[in-house]
Amino acid sequence: MNTRIYNARVLTMDGDTNIIENGEVLVRGNTILYAGSKEGAIEYLQNSTDTIMWNREIDANGNLVMPGFKNAHTHSGMTFLRSAADDMKLDDWLTQQIFPREALLTPDDVYIATKLAILEYLTSGVTAVCEMYLMPEVIAKAMEESGMRCVQCGGMNNFSQSLELQRKWFKELNKENSLTSYRLGLHAEYTTSKELLEQTAALAKELKAPVYLHNSETEAEVKGCKDRYNGLTPTEALDEMGMFEYGGTFFHGVHVTDHDMEIMKKHNIAVVTNPASNAKLASGIAPIEKYLKEGITLGIGTDGPASNNCLDMFREMFLVTGLAKLRENDASAVDAAEVLKMAAVGGAHAMGLTDCDSLKSGKKADLIMLDMHAPNMQPINNIVKNVVYSGSKSNVLMTMIDGKILYEKGEFNIGEDPEKIYSEVQAIIDRMR
Amino acid sequence: MNTRIYNARVLTMDGDTNIIENGEVLVRGNTILYAGSKEGAIEYLQNSTDTIMWNREIDANGNLVMPGFKNAHTHSGMTFLRSAADDMKLDDWLTQQIFPREALLTPDDVYIATKLAILEYLTSGVTAVCEMYLMPEVIAKAMEESGMRCVQCGGMNNFSQSLELQRKWFKELNKENSLTSYRLGLHAEYTTSKELLEQTAALAKELKAPVYLHNSETEAEVKGCKDRYNGLTPTEALDEMGMFEYGGTFFHGVHVTDHDMEIMKKHNIAVVTNPASNAKLASGIAPIEKYLKEGITLGIGTDGPASNNCLDMFREMFLVTGLAKLRENDASAVDAAEVLKMAAVGGAHAMGLTDCDSLKSGKKADLIMLDMHAPNMQPINNIVKNVVYSGSKSNVLMTMIDGKILYEKGEFNIGEDPEKIYSEVQAIIDRMR
Repeated sequence: MNTRIYNARVLTMDGDTNIIENGEVLVRGNTILYAGSKEGAIEYLQNSTDTIMWNREIDANGNLVMPGFKNAHTHSGMTFLRSAADDMKLDDWLTQQIFPREALLTPDDVYIATKLAILEYLTSGVTAVCEMYLMPEVIAKAMEESGMRCVQCGGMNNFSQSLELQRKWFKELNKENSLTSYRLGLHAEYTTSKELLEQTAALAKELKAPVYLHNSETEAEVKGCKDRYNGLTPTEALDEMGMFEYGGTFFHGVHVTDHDMEIMKKHNIAVVTNPASNAKLASGIAPIEKYLKEGITLGIGTDGPASNNCLDMFREMFLVTGLAKLRENDASAVDAAEVLKMAAVGGAHAMGLTDCDSLKSGKKADLIMLDMHAPNMQPINNIVKNVVYSGSKSNVLMTMIDGKILYEKGEFNIGEDPEKIYSEVQAIIDRMR
Repeated sequence: MNTRIYNARVLTMDGDTNIIENGEVLVRGNTILYAGSKEGAIEYLQNSTDTIMWNREIDANGNLVMPGFKNAHTHSGMTFLRSAADDMKLDDWLTQQIFPREALLTPDDVYIATKLAILEYLTSGVTAVCEMYLMPEVIAKAMEESGMRCVQCGGMNNFSQSLELQRKWFKELNKENSLTSYRLGLHAEYTTSKELLEQTAALAKELKAPVYLHNSETEAEVKGCKDRYNGLTPTEALDEMGMFEYGGTFFHGVHVTDHDMEIMKKHNIAVVTNPASNAKLASGIAPIEKYLKEGITLGIGTDGPASNNCLDMFREMFLVTGLAKLRENDASAVDAAEVLKMAAVGGAHAMGLTDCDSLKSGKKADLIMLDMHAPNMQPINNIVKNVVYSGSKSNVLMTMIDGKILYEKGEFNIGEDPEKIYSEVQAIIDRMR
């Protein structure tokens, strides 16, 4: 499948957030051949040694073509619990509503609930997700069949998954030329024994692997860790165990110290912020302004649909900057361009997807088209600010992953009828009532 | 135009937030005849003395029909400034970016910039707006021609508008059977001299009118008032002048005291919260939980598109609850049903539109249809929570105002070509560069 998109506003995000007017993007198979000006495209094709047959040539009509968003932290399979339990204290929510129901999930349930999430990602311009949930083989199948790019990470803790399973999945779920991959990961310090944490650190060294985990999401979590580890924060305690020799990624990172940030910088640890979930569960506001100042890689995630409850990167982007401005008491904190970089580029880096971060020759063709002919995108004073401050899922005209158009003008192309997915997910939760 | 909507999930919001499955809504002209169960609709029509010819019968296919959202505080004409100035300190923003450009606006500019806002309202399910801006006659014309319901209020201050103009507009812009109306209003305490405030209080008494104003948006504003008025807050100072004998509505109400709330209760003053604007301009988080506890009427507004930057009630609804949860450090604060009531019912009351608050026989036919066959609305565990926590403009299938369908499946019906509106608004800001 080769696709030429012309007459587009192109935002390559290759080092800057400048807009190329009347630009083109050329895609061959799953790879970007060229992204830039119309003149550059003509030159590129003239100098090309072979002739490319276009399966589709798309007139973008002045709409914006840019790298897709990376949902850098999610639990897709939790769609079945959307709106099943909200407006509750975090503890009650987890122990009374979430855990008992998750214990009843079958592989078929996880498979179809993941597909529901994929539909929603596509409507929000998400081209890759960083997933932590139960039954990784099932999730990999759902993602690959649908055409969604997915980096999975372990969610090991005292109660589920194990070192042996981590090792097995790390080996079996990382294949060449696959849409999906697997990273070593654990749920969090507070759900994992010291012994298991130390064994994980040893495994990370053996595999030369970064470690992915929830970290410092709530004040109570940090306090608990300090009680357990002689006053050390989770970041400090895990660092002392040698957990981050090959880096890692922290999900949330809301309650962190200056020393924690030193450790993150030393080990090239990225942070994925989840502002909607942190607000809805009253966890707090992450220090994004400070992370930026320290040069720490930042991505944005929705967290799972049971805590958010939607998988909408536009809402997350507004929240990243809106909450930062409130936190710093400064309307100039964390500007729109920084937020867009997090959503498209930083998230890719936090997930280890360095070939999906921008529109550039040789990168993977993971891109979206956003409608500029919509009232919330007019006038065109500053397109980046329009996208971050005004943008909505309603502006997503097309989502392409690995060169395949999976969503276009409201229609899905993932090989399954959405209504069938809806009714099967409904059946899961109906069965549990 | 008579419309029958059947096979709908109906949320009347008439006293509760229960969903009627397989319901119907019958509209004759601009009025709701009936909203409820299918059986009730059959009975209603059997008992009706005359035969109604339906111009349209719409199969809702299980989608949700509910009262439209009320954007209870906005400055529509500011669309031309969207994304023209952001990520700046509030003072610089106002004095360097906003005021100098507003001074250059012509009536034609305000007219077309208002129409751009109307398009956006329709995409977000907004069926009425509470408007404060320049040139009220022009705004009334744009709203009426488009079919948008609009309550305007004065924005009088030391520099623009006057008591004479307020009196004139109050007389001329309040007509029987009109989509638009006019309320006495002033910009804010901090932009209005004591003399003018006292004269406004006298005019409110003379007209037996509630007073609409920005109040206690920022800490600096409250501090300034205390310096000017011997330690009195804006609410206290204006109350002492007798401003609220016939009630009023406060926009923002972020920084208020317990005594301010006593005054609000005494005079039946409503508060309209603008969470996105308050976040983006780093003004703070309003005490919504406390307002609810005190029984104060609450509405939700987007504020103007230069400060927000979009006119999206779904984002505002999530922010109302998300920010309240952060403020109270309590995930159970301000639940979804309360937020939906604010957006649909409370806002109507804050604007004095008591005949547009719910779907009930005799009420105005201001309603919307939301797509339940969308991934972010599935599964159906709790529709109210789905709308507030997961909802998006992309779910708005139809917006009907005063019995007229003005927006349906992406198409506008306001008598003007959207592309023409876009290019004319673009010309305003291009001219000012």
